[in-house]
Amino acid sequence: MKIAVSGKGGVGKTTISAYIVKKFAAEGYQVYAVDADPDLSLGTVLGIENQDIQNLKPIVDMRDVIAEKSGGGGAYYSLNPDVDDVLNEYAIRIGNIKFFKMGAVKQGGSSCYCRENSFLNSLMNALLLNNKDVVVLDMGAGIEHLTRGTSKGVDAIIVVTEPTLVSVQTAQVVTKLAHELEIKNVKYIGNKIRRVEEQEFLKKHLIPEDILGFISYNESMLDEALGLAPKEDAGVFEQDMNFVFKNLVSQIN
Amino acid sequence: MKIAVSGKGGVGKTTISAYIVKKFAAEGYQVYAVDADPDLSLGTVLGIENQDIQNLKPIVDMRDVIAEKSGGGGAYYSLNPDVDDVLNEYAIRIGNIKFFKMGAVKQGGSSCYCRENSFLNSLMNALLLNNKDVVVLDMGAGIEHLTRGTSKGVDAIIVVTEPTLVSVQTAQVVTKLAHELEIKNVKYIGNKIRRVEEQEFLKKHLIPEDILGFISYNESMLDEALGLAPKEDAGVFEQDMNFVFKNLVSQIN
Repeated sequence: MKIAVSGKGGVGKTTISAYIVKKFAAEGYQVYAVDADPDLSLGTVLGIENQDIQNLKPIVDMRDVIAEKSGGGGAYYSLNPDVDDVLNEYAIRIGNIKFFKMGAVKQGGSSCYCRENSFLNSLMNALLLNNKDVVVLDMGAGIEHLTRGTSKGVDAIIVVTEPTLVSVQTAQVVTKLAHELEIKNVKYIGNKIRRVEEQEFLKKHLIPEDILGFISYNESMLDEALGLAPKEDAGVFEQDMNFVFKNLVSQIN
Repeated sequence: MKIAVSGKGGVGKTTISAYIVKKFAAEGYQVYAVDADPDLSLGTVLGIENQDIQNLKPIVDMRDVIAEKSGGGGAYYSLNPDVDDVLNEYAIRIGNIKFFKMGAVKQGGSSCYCRENSFLNSLMNALLLNNKDVVVLDMGAGIEHLTRGTSKGVDAIIVVTEPTLVSVQTAQVVTKLAHELEIKNVKYIGNKIRRVEEQEFLKKHLIPEDILGFISYNESMLDEALGLAPKEDAGVFEQDMNFVFKNLVSQIN
Protein backbone atom coordinates (compact mmCIF):
# COMPACT_ATOMS: atom_id res chain seq x y z
CA MET A 1 0.00 0.00 0.00
CA LYS A 2 1.30 3.43 -0.95
CA ILE A 3 -0.01 6.41 0.98
CA ALA A 4 0.76 10.11 0.47
CA VAL A 5 0.04 12.57 3.28
CA SER A 6 -0.84 16.02 2.00
CA GLY A 7 -2.37 19.33 3.10
CA LYS A 8 -1.70 22.99 3.69
CA GLY A 9 1.48 24.00 5.47
CA GLY A 10 1.38 23.58 9.23
CA VAL A 11 -1.75 21.44 9.47
CA GLY A 12 0.17 18.58 11.07
CA LYS A 13 1.16 16.43 8.07
CA THR A 14 4.50 15.40 9.52
CA THR A 15 3.29 14.60 13.05
CA ILE A 16 0.46 12.51 11.61
CA SER A 17 2.73 10.83 9.01
CA ALA A 18 5.16 9.87 11.77
CA TYR A 19 2.36 8.36 13.82
CA ILE A 20 1.01 6.37 10.87
CA VAL A 21 4.54 5.10 10.15
CA LYS A 22 5.07 3.96 13.74
CA LYS A 23 1.63 2.41 13.98
CA PHE A 24 2.06 0.34 10.81
CA ALA A 25 5.47 -0.75 12.10
CA ALA A 26 3.98 -1.76 15.45
CA GLU A 27 1.44 -3.89 13.59
CA GLY A 28 4.22 -5.81 11.89
CA TYR A 29 4.34 -4.04 8.54
CA GLN A 30 7.60 -3.24 6.77
CA VAL A 31 7.30 0.54 6.46
CA TYR A 32 9.06 2.76 3.94
CA ALA A 33 8.85 6.28 5.36
CA VAL A 34 9.77 8.92 2.79
CA ASP A 35 10.30 12.59 3.55
CA ALA A 36 9.29 14.15 0.23
CA ASP A 37 9.52 17.73 1.53
CA PRO A 38 12.78 19.54 0.70
CA ASP A 39 12.25 21.28 4.04
CA LEU A 40 13.03 18.07 5.93
CA SER A 41 11.20 17.29 9.19
CA LEU A 42 9.85 13.73 9.15
CA GLY A 43 13.16 12.21 10.23
CA THR A 44 13.41 14.57 13.21
CA VAL A 45 9.89 13.70 14.33
CA LEU A 46 10.71 9.98 13.96
CA GLY A 47 13.55 10.60 16.42
CA ILE A 48 16.51 10.44 14.03
CA GLU A 49 19.52 12.64 14.83
CA ASN A 50 19.92 15.69 12.63
CA GLN A 51 23.45 14.75 11.70
CA ASP A 52 22.33 11.30 10.52
CA ILE A 53 19.59 12.84 8.37
CA GLN A 54 22.08 15.24 6.82
CA ASN A 55 24.52 12.43 6.08
CA LEU A 56 21.88 10.18 4.53
CA LYS A 57 22.16 9.86 0.74
CA PRO A 58 19.00 11.23 -0.90
CA ILE A 59 16.79 8.96 -3.02
CA VAL A 60 17.50 11.03 -6.13
CA ASP A 61 21.11 9.76 -6.07
CA MET A 62 19.76 6.26 -6.73
CA ARG A 63 18.90 7.34 -10.24
CA ASP A 64 22.19 6.50 -11.92
CA VAL A 65 22.59 3.24 -9.99
CA ILE A 66 19.18 2.08 -11.10
CA ALA A 67 19.68 3.23 -14.68
CA GLU A 68 22.83 1.11 -14.74
CA LYS A 69 21.12 -1.95 -13.25
CA SER A 70 18.37 -1.72 -15.83
CA GLY A 71 20.90 -1.64 -18.65
CA GLY A 72 20.98 2.10 -19.08
CA GLY A 73 17.94 1.95 -21.32
CA GLY A 74 16.09 4.53 -19.31
CA ALA A 75 13.28 2.22 -18.24
CA TYR A 76 13.36 1.42 -14.57
CA TYR A 77 13.56 -2.16 -13.52
CA SER A 78 11.09 -3.26 -10.90
CA LEU A 79 12.39 -2.88 -7.39
CA ASN A 80 11.64 -5.70 -5.07
CA PRO A 81 12.34 -4.35 -1.61
CA ASP A 82 12.77 -7.86 -0.16
CA VAL A 83 15.82 -8.63 -2.21
CA ASP A 84 17.03 -5.26 -3.29
CA ASP A 85 20.11 -4.05 -1.55
CA VAL A 86 20.09 -0.77 -3.50
CA LEU A 87 17.31 0.54 -1.27
CA ASN A 88 19.17 -0.23 1.95
CA GLU A 89 22.04 2.07 1.08
CA TYR A 90 19.66 5.01 1.06
CA ALA A 91 17.78 4.12 4.23
CA ILE A 92 18.10 4.70 7.92
CA ARG A 93 16.66 1.68 9.71
CA ILE A 94 14.62 1.90 12.90
CA GLY A 95 13.21 -1.56 13.64
CA ASN A 96 11.01 -2.37 10.66
CA ILE A 97 10.91 1.23 9.49
CA LYS A 98 13.19 2.34 6.68
CA PHE A 99 13.52 6.09 6.45
CA PHE A 100 14.40 7.83 3.16
CA LYS A 101 14.75 11.44 2.12
CA MET A 102 13.78 12.59 -1.38
CA GLY A 103 16.44 15.25 -1.76
CA ALA A 104 19.11 17.18 0.07
CA VAL A 105 19.10 20.88 0.91
CA LYS A 106 20.63 22.73 -2.05
CA GLN A 107 22.44 26.01 -2.48
CA GLY A 108 20.35 29.17 -2.64
CA GLY A 109 19.45 29.93 -6.24
CA SER A 110 20.86 26.64 -7.50
CA SER A 111 17.73 24.85 -8.66
CA CYS A 112 14.26 23.47 -8.11
CA TYR A 113 13.31 20.01 -6.84
CA CYS A 114 11.74 18.84 -10.11
CA ARG A 115 14.29 16.10 -10.74
CA GLU A 116 13.84 14.78 -7.20
CA ASN A 117 10.06 14.74 -7.51
CA SER A 118 10.12 13.11 -10.89
CA PHE A 119 12.50 10.37 -9.77
CA LEU A 120 10.53 9.72 -6.60
CA ASN A 121 7.45 9.17 -8.73
CA SER A 122 9.25 6.69 -11.01
CA LEU A 123 10.64 4.89 -7.99
CA MET A 124 7.22 4.60 -6.38
CA ASN A 125 5.82 3.10 -9.56
CA ALA A 126 8.70 0.62 -9.82
CA LEU A 127 8.34 -0.55 -6.25
CA LEU A 128 6.66 -3.94 -5.91
CA LEU A 129 5.10 -4.31 -2.50
CA ASN A 130 3.99 -7.30 -0.50
CA ASN A 131 0.77 -7.28 1.46
CA LYS A 132 2.66 -6.39 4.59
CA ASP A 133 4.65 -3.55 3.02
CA VAL A 134 3.54 0.05 3.21
CA VAL A 135 5.01 3.28 1.89
CA VAL A 136 4.18 6.53 3.65
CA LEU A 137 5.13 9.71 1.78
CA ASP A 138 5.20 12.92 3.78
CA MET A 139 4.66 15.48 1.00
CA GLY A 140 5.72 19.12 0.87
CA ALA A 141 3.14 21.71 1.89
CA GLY A 142 0.64 22.83 -0.68
CA ILE A 143 -0.21 21.53 -4.10
CA GLU A 144 2.94 21.43 -6.23
CA HIS A 145 3.62 17.71 -5.55
CA LEU A 146 0.28 17.12 -7.26
CA THR A 147 0.74 19.43 -10.25
CA ARG A 148 4.17 17.83 -10.64
CA GLY A 149 2.59 14.39 -10.48
CA THR A 150 4.87 13.17 -7.68
CA SER A 151 1.95 11.47 -5.93
CA LYS A 152 0.72 9.80 -9.12
CA GLY A 153 0.46 6.08 -8.52
CA VAL A 154 -0.23 6.10 -4.79
CA ASP A 155 -3.20 4.07 -3.56
CA ALA A 156 -4.41 6.75 -1.24
CA ILE A 157 -3.89 10.38 -0.43
CA ILE A 158 -4.64 11.56 3.08
CA VAL A 159 -5.41 15.24 3.31
CA VAL A 160 -4.82 16.70 6.74
CA THR A 161 -6.86 19.80 7.42
CA GLU A 162 -7.51 22.27 10.22
CA PRO A 163 -10.95 23.74 10.78
CA THR A 164 -10.10 26.97 8.96
CA LEU A 165 -11.30 28.29 5.63
CA VAL A 166 -7.86 28.49 4.00
CA SER A 167 -7.01 24.98 5.12
CA VAL A 168 -10.27 23.61 3.73
CA GLN A 169 -9.71 25.46 0.45
CA THR A 170 -6.36 23.72 0.07
CA ALA A 171 -8.01 20.36 0.89
CA GLN A 172 -10.54 20.98 -1.87
CA VAL A 173 -7.86 21.83 -4.43
CA VAL A 174 -5.84 18.76 -3.37
CA THR A 175 -8.96 16.62 -3.85
CA LYS A 176 -9.56 17.98 -7.34
CA LEU A 177 -5.92 17.42 -8.35
CA ALA A 178 -5.87 13.92 -6.81
CA HIS A 179 -8.90 12.99 -8.91
CA GLU A 180 -7.12 14.30 -12.00
CA LEU A 181 -4.22 11.98 -11.10
CA GLU A 182 -6.78 9.15 -10.79
CA ILE A 183 -5.89 8.42 -7.20
CA LYS A 184 -8.62 6.07 -6.00
CA ASN A 185 -8.78 6.99 -2.33
CA VAL A 186 -8.88 10.57 -1.09
CA LYS A 187 -9.40 10.65 2.67
CA TYR A 188 -9.37 13.46 5.22
CA ILE A 189 -8.17 13.89 8.77
CA GLY A 190 -9.47 16.87 10.73
CA ASN A 191 -6.68 18.08 12.99
CA LYS A 192 -6.49 20.65 15.83
CA ILE A 193 -10.15 20.24 16.73
CA ARG A 194 -11.34 21.96 19.91
CA ARG A 195 -15.11 22.01 19.48
CA VAL A 196 -17.93 20.04 17.93
CA GLU A 197 -18.71 23.05 15.70
CA GLU A 198 -15.31 22.63 14.13
CA GLN A 199 -16.08 19.02 13.23
CA GLU A 200 -19.35 20.20 11.68
CA PHE A 201 -17.49 22.88 9.76
CA LEU A 202 -15.21 20.25 8.19
CA LYS A 203 -18.10 17.89 7.46
CA LYS A 204 -19.90 20.71 5.69
CA HIS A 205 -16.91 21.56 3.46
CA LEU A 206 -15.56 18.06 2.78
CA ILE A 207 -17.13 14.67 2.02
CA PRO A 208 -18.22 13.48 5.51
CA GLU A 209 -17.89 9.74 4.82
CA ASP A 210 -14.31 10.27 3.67
CA ILE A 211 -13.24 11.87 6.94
CA LEU A 212 -11.21 9.23 8.77
CA GLY A 213 -11.60 11.03 12.07
CA PHE A 214 -10.80 14.10 14.13
CA ILE A 215 -7.78 14.83 16.27
CA SER A 216 -8.14 17.07 19.29
CA TYR A 217 -6.15 20.25 19.56
CA ASN A 218 -3.17 19.36 21.68
CA GLU A 219 -1.41 22.25 23.31
CA SER A 220 1.35 20.10 24.73
CA MET A 221 2.69 19.12 21.30
CA LEU A 222 4.34 22.52 21.05
CA ASP A 223 5.56 22.33 24.61
CA GLU A 224 7.03 18.90 24.09
CA ALA A 225 8.97 20.25 21.13
CA LEU A 226 10.32 22.86 23.53
CA GLY A 227 11.03 20.37 26.28
CA LEU A 228 8.72 22.46 28.50
CA ALA A 229 6.02 19.92 29.21
CA PRO A 230 5.70 16.24 29.96
CA LYS A 231 3.83 14.14 27.44
CA GLU A 232 0.63 14.13 29.46
CA ASP A 233 -1.69 14.89 26.54
CA ALA A 234 -0.08 12.23 24.41
CA GLY A 235 -2.81 9.81 25.54
CA VAL A 236 -5.55 11.89 23.91
CA PHE A 237 -3.61 12.22 20.67
CA GLU A 238 -2.96 8.49 20.63
CA GLN A 239 -6.61 7.70 21.26
CA ASP A 240 -7.70 9.97 18.41
CA MET A 241 -5.03 8.65 16.08
CA ASN A 242 -5.83 5.02 16.86
CA PHE A 243 -9.39 5.64 15.77
CA VAL A 244 -8.18 7.37 12.59
CA PHE A 245 -5.69 4.58 11.90
CA LYS A 246 -8.31 1.86 12.25
CA ASN A 247 -10.50 3.66 9.72
CA LEU A 248 -7.56 4.20 7.43
CA VAL A 249 -6.69 0.50 7.32
CA SER A 250 -10.28 -0.66 6.90
CA GLN A 251 -11.19 1.92 4.25
CA ILE A 252 -8.09 1.61 2.11
CA ASN A 253 -6.94 -2.00 2.30
CA MET B 1 11.57 48.24 -0.88
CA LYS B 2 11.07 44.59 -1.75
CA ILE B 3 10.22 42.22 1.07
CA ALA B 4 9.71 38.45 0.95
CA VAL B 5 7.89 36.70 3.77
CA SER B 6 9.09 33.15 4.32
CA GLY B 7 8.98 30.30 6.86
CA LYS B 8 7.77 26.79 7.50
CA GLY B 9 4.23 25.87 6.47
CA GLY B 10 1.55 27.06 8.85
CA VAL B 11 3.64 29.51 10.88
CA GLY B 12 1.46 32.45 9.87
CA LYS B 13 3.23 33.81 6.80
CA THR B 14 0.04 34.82 5.03
CA THR B 15 -1.69 36.43 8.02
CA ILE B 16 1.44 38.44 8.76
CA SER B 17 2.03 39.32 5.08
CA ALA B 18 -1.55 40.60 4.84
CA TYR B 19 -1.06 42.78 7.91
CA ILE B 20 2.21 44.21 6.60
CA VAL B 21 0.53 44.95 3.27
CA LYS B 22 -2.37 46.77 4.94
CA LYS B 23 -0.12 48.65 7.31
CA PHE B 24 2.14 49.98 4.54
CA ALA B 25 -0.98 50.99 2.61
CA ALA B 26 -2.38 52.80 5.65
CA GLU B 27 0.89 54.73 5.91
CA GLY B 28 0.49 56.00 2.37
CA TYR B 29 2.72 53.56 0.50
CA GLN B 30 1.79 52.12 -2.86
CA VAL B 31 1.86 48.40 -2.07
CA TYR B 32 2.34 45.54 -4.52
CA ALA B 33 1.09 42.43 -2.73
CA VAL B 34 2.14 39.25 -4.51
CA ASP B 35 0.87 35.77 -3.68
CA ALA B 36 3.86 33.66 -4.70
CA ASP B 37 2.40 30.43 -3.31
CA PRO B 38 0.67 28.17 -5.88
CA ASP B 39 -1.61 27.22 -2.99
CA LEU B 40 -3.21 30.68 -3.04
CA SER B 41 -4.34 32.28 0.23
CA LEU B 42 -3.09 35.87 0.48
CA GLY B 43 -5.93 37.26 -1.61
CA THR B 44 -8.52 35.56 0.60
CA VAL B 45 -6.94 36.97 3.75
CA LEU B 46 -6.87 40.45 2.13
CA GLY B 47 -10.62 40.08 1.71
CA ILE B 48 -10.81 39.47 -2.03
CA GLU B 49 -13.61 37.22 -3.30
CA ASN B 50 -12.52 33.75 -4.36
CA GLN B 51 -14.10 34.16 -7.78
CA ASP B 52 -12.15 37.36 -8.41
CA ILE B 53 -8.87 35.67 -7.44
CA GLN B 54 -9.62 32.78 -9.75
CA ASN B 55 -10.42 35.13 -12.64
CA LEU B 56 -7.29 37.24 -12.13
CA LYS B 57 -4.64 36.75 -14.81
CA PRO B 58 -1.46 35.37 -13.23
CA ILE B 59 1.78 37.35 -13.43
CA VAL B 60 3.42 34.62 -15.51
CA ASP B 61 1.10 35.52 -18.41
CA MET B 62 2.81 38.91 -18.55
CA ARG B 63 5.88 37.21 -19.94
CA ASP B 64 5.00 37.37 -23.61
CA VAL B 65 3.62 40.90 -23.36
CA ILE B 66 6.82 42.12 -21.79
CA ALA B 67 9.03 40.20 -24.23
CA GLU B 68 7.16 41.95 -27.02
CA LYS B 69 7.50 45.41 -25.44
CA SER B 70 11.22 44.91 -25.03
CA GLY B 71 11.58 44.02 -28.68
CA GLY B 72 11.52 40.27 -28.21
CA GLY B 73 15.20 40.26 -27.42
CA GLY B 74 14.69 38.34 -24.22
CA ALA B 75 16.01 41.09 -21.96
CA TYR B 76 13.33 42.62 -19.81
CA TYR B 77 12.75 46.32 -20.04
CA SER B 78 12.59 48.15 -16.73
CA LEU B 79 9.09 48.37 -15.38
CA ASN B 80 8.11 51.65 -13.92
CA PRO B 81 4.96 50.98 -11.95
CA ASP B 82 3.92 54.66 -12.08
CA VAL B 83 3.48 54.72 -15.80
CA ASP B 84 3.18 51.08 -16.69
CA ASP B 85 -0.26 49.99 -17.63
CA VAL B 86 0.88 46.40 -18.19
CA LEU B 87 0.97 45.85 -14.44
CA ASN B 88 -2.58 47.10 -13.93
CA GLU B 89 -4.06 44.42 -16.12
CA TYR B 90 -2.76 41.77 -13.76
CA ALA B 91 -3.77 43.48 -10.53
CA ILE B 92 -6.79 43.63 -8.29
CA ARG B 93 -6.87 47.09 -6.70
CA ILE B 94 -7.90 47.72 -3.10
CA GLY B 95 -7.17 51.37 -2.30
CA ASN B 96 -3.43 51.76 -2.74
CA ILE B 97 -2.85 48.02 -2.66
CA LYS B 98 -2.38 46.15 -5.92
CA PHE B 99 -2.79 42.41 -5.54
CA PHE B 100 -1.10 39.95 -7.92
CA LYS B 101 -0.90 36.19 -8.11
CA MET B 102 2.23 34.42 -9.38
CA GLY B 103 0.48 31.51 -11.07
CA ALA B 104 -2.82 29.77 -11.47
CA VAL B 105 -3.80 26.35 -10.15
CA LYS B 106 -2.80 23.78 -12.78
CA GLN B 107 -4.00 20.32 -13.72
CA GLY B 108 -2.79 17.42 -11.60
CA GLY B 109 0.41 16.01 -13.07
CA SER B 110 0.71 18.80 -15.62
CA SER B 111 3.82 20.62 -14.41
CA CYS B 112 5.86 22.38 -11.77
CA TYR B 113 5.88 26.10 -10.98
CA CYS B 114 9.45 26.71 -12.15
CA ARG B 115 8.48 29.00 -15.01
CA GLU B 116 6.28 31.07 -12.67
CA ASN B 117 9.04 31.40 -10.08
CA SER B 118 11.66 32.28 -12.63
CA PHE B 119 9.50 34.96 -14.25
CA LEU B 120 8.52 36.43 -10.89
CA ASN B 121 12.21 36.81 -10.08
CA SER B 122 12.92 38.60 -13.39
CA LEU B 123 9.94 40.85 -12.87
CA MET B 124 11.04 41.76 -9.35
CA ASN B 125 14.46 42.71 -10.64
CA ALA B 126 12.98 44.80 -13.48
CA LEU B 127 10.68 46.72 -11.16
CA LEU B 128 11.86 50.24 -10.41
CA LEU B 129 10.41 51.45 -7.15
CA ASN B 130 9.96 54.88 -5.67
CA ASN B 131 10.63 55.59 -2.01
CA LYS B 132 6.99 55.19 -1.25
CA ASP B 133 6.57 51.90 -3.14
CA VAL B 134 6.82 48.56 -1.45
CA VAL B 135 6.50 45.00 -2.73
CA VAL B 136 5.45 42.27 -0.31
CA LEU B 137 5.88 38.71 -1.56
CA ASP B 138 4.06 35.97 0.33
CA MET B 139 6.24 32.98 -0.51
CA GLY B 140 5.27 29.30 -0.61
CA ALA B 141 5.99 27.23 2.49
CA GLY B 142 9.46 25.83 2.91
CA ILE B 143 12.69 26.46 1.09
CA GLU B 144 12.16 25.82 -2.61
CA HIS B 145 11.58 29.51 -3.45
CA LEU B 146 15.13 30.06 -2.20
CA THR B 147 16.81 27.13 -3.95
CA ARG B 148 14.98 28.29 -7.09
CA GLY B 149 16.23 31.81 -6.54
CA THR B 150 12.75 33.37 -6.68
CA SER B 151 13.55 35.66 -3.75
CA LYS B 152 16.88 36.74 -5.22
CA GLY B 153 16.97 40.52 -5.41
CA VAL B 154 14.66 41.35 -2.51
CA ASP B 155 15.92 43.85 0.05
CA ALA B 156 14.74 41.82 3.00
CA ILE B 157 13.46 38.43 3.87
CA ILE B 158 11.24 38.08 6.91
CA VAL B 159 11.23 34.60 8.39
CA VAL B 160 8.15 33.85 10.44
CA THR B 161 8.71 31.16 13.03
CA GLU B 162 6.84 29.40 15.80
CA PRO B 163 8.57 28.39 19.03
CA THR B 164 9.05 24.78 17.91
CA LEU B 165 12.20 22.93 16.94
CA VAL B 166 11.10 22.07 13.40
CA SER B 167 10.03 25.64 12.75
CA VAL B 168 13.36 27.00 14.00
CA GLN B 169 15.26 24.46 11.87
CA THR B 170 13.47 25.77 8.79
CA ALA B 171 14.27 29.36 9.83
CA GLN B 172 17.95 28.43 10.08
CA VAL B 173 17.98 26.81 6.63
CA VAL B 174 16.13 29.83 5.17
CA THR B 175 18.76 32.12 6.74
CA LYS B 176 21.63 30.13 5.23
CA LEU B 177 20.01 30.12 1.78
CA ALA B 178 19.16 33.84 2.00
CA HIS B 179 22.82 34.60 2.72
CA GLU B 180 23.82 32.52 -0.31
CA LEU B 181 21.44 34.67 -2.36
CA GLU B 182 23.18 37.75 -0.85
CA ILE B 183 19.98 39.11 0.63
CA LYS B 184 21.12 41.91 2.94
CA ASN B 185 18.43 41.78 5.59
CA VAL B 186 17.23 38.57 7.19
CA LYS B 187 14.79 39.33 9.99
CA TYR B 188 12.60 37.10 12.18
CA ILE B 189 9.13 37.31 13.64
CA GLY B 190 8.26 34.94 16.48
CA ASN B 191 4.62 33.96 16.10
CA LYS B 192 2.13 32.02 18.30
CA ILE B 193 3.94 32.93 21.52
CA ARG B 194 2.23 32.01 24.77
CA ARG B 195 5.02 32.24 27.32
CA VAL B 196 8.24 34.12 28.02
CA GLU B 197 10.14 30.81 27.79
CA GLU B 198 9.08 30.56 24.17
CA GLN B 199 10.61 33.97 23.42
CA GLU B 200 13.81 32.81 25.10
CA PHE B 201 13.75 29.62 23.04
CA LEU B 202 13.65 31.63 19.82
CA LYS B 203 16.34 34.07 21.00
CA LYS B 204 18.58 31.12 21.78
CA HIS B 205 18.16 29.55 18.33
CA LEU B 206 18.09 32.69 16.16
CA ILE B 207 20.01 35.99 16.14
CA PRO B 208 18.27 37.94 18.92
CA GLU B 209 18.91 41.42 17.49
CA ASP B 210 17.34 40.35 14.20
CA ILE B 211 14.05 39.36 15.81
CA LEU B 212 11.59 42.11 14.93
CA GLY B 213 9.23 41.09 17.69
CA PHE B 214 6.90 38.46 19.06
CA ILE B 215 3.23 37.91 18.34
CA SER B 216 1.04 36.39 21.00
CA TYR B 217 -0.79 33.15 20.34
CA ASN B 218 -4.25 34.16 19.29
CA GLU B 219 -6.89 31.52 19.63
CA SER B 220 -9.58 33.62 18.05
CA MET B 221 -7.85 33.76 14.67
CA LEU B 222 -9.08 30.24 13.98
CA ASP B 223 -12.51 31.04 15.30
CA GLU B 224 -12.77 34.13 13.17
CA ALA B 225 -11.99 32.02 10.13
CA LEU B 226 -14.91 29.84 11.19
CA GLY B 227 -17.19 32.76 11.89
CA LEU B 228 -17.49 31.43 15.45
CA ALA B 229 -16.00 34.30 17.37
CA PRO B 230 -16.01 38.08 17.34
CA LYS B 231 -12.70 39.80 16.70
CA GLU B 232 -12.06 40.51 20.36
CA ASP B 233 -8.42 39.39 20.35
CA ALA B 234 -7.67 41.40 17.26
CA GLY B 235 -6.47 44.22 19.52
CA VAL B 236 -3.64 42.13 20.95
CA PHE B 237 -2.56 40.96 17.49
CA GLU B 238 -2.61 44.53 16.24
CA GLN B 239 -0.57 45.77 19.17
CA ASP B 240 2.05 43.06 18.64
CA MET B 241 2.13 43.60 14.89
CA ASN B 242 2.41 47.40 15.24
CA PHE B 243 5.55 46.91 17.31
CA VAL B 244 6.94 44.44 14.75
CA PHE B 245 6.06 46.77 11.89
CA LYS B 246 7.80 49.75 13.49
CA ASN B 247 10.96 47.68 13.88
CA LEU B 248 10.66 46.41 10.34
CA VAL B 249 10.49 49.90 8.86
CA SER B 250 13.30 51.27 11.03
CA GLN B 251 15.63 48.32 10.53
CA ILE B 252 15.19 47.87 6.80
CA ASN B 253 14.62 51.32 5.31
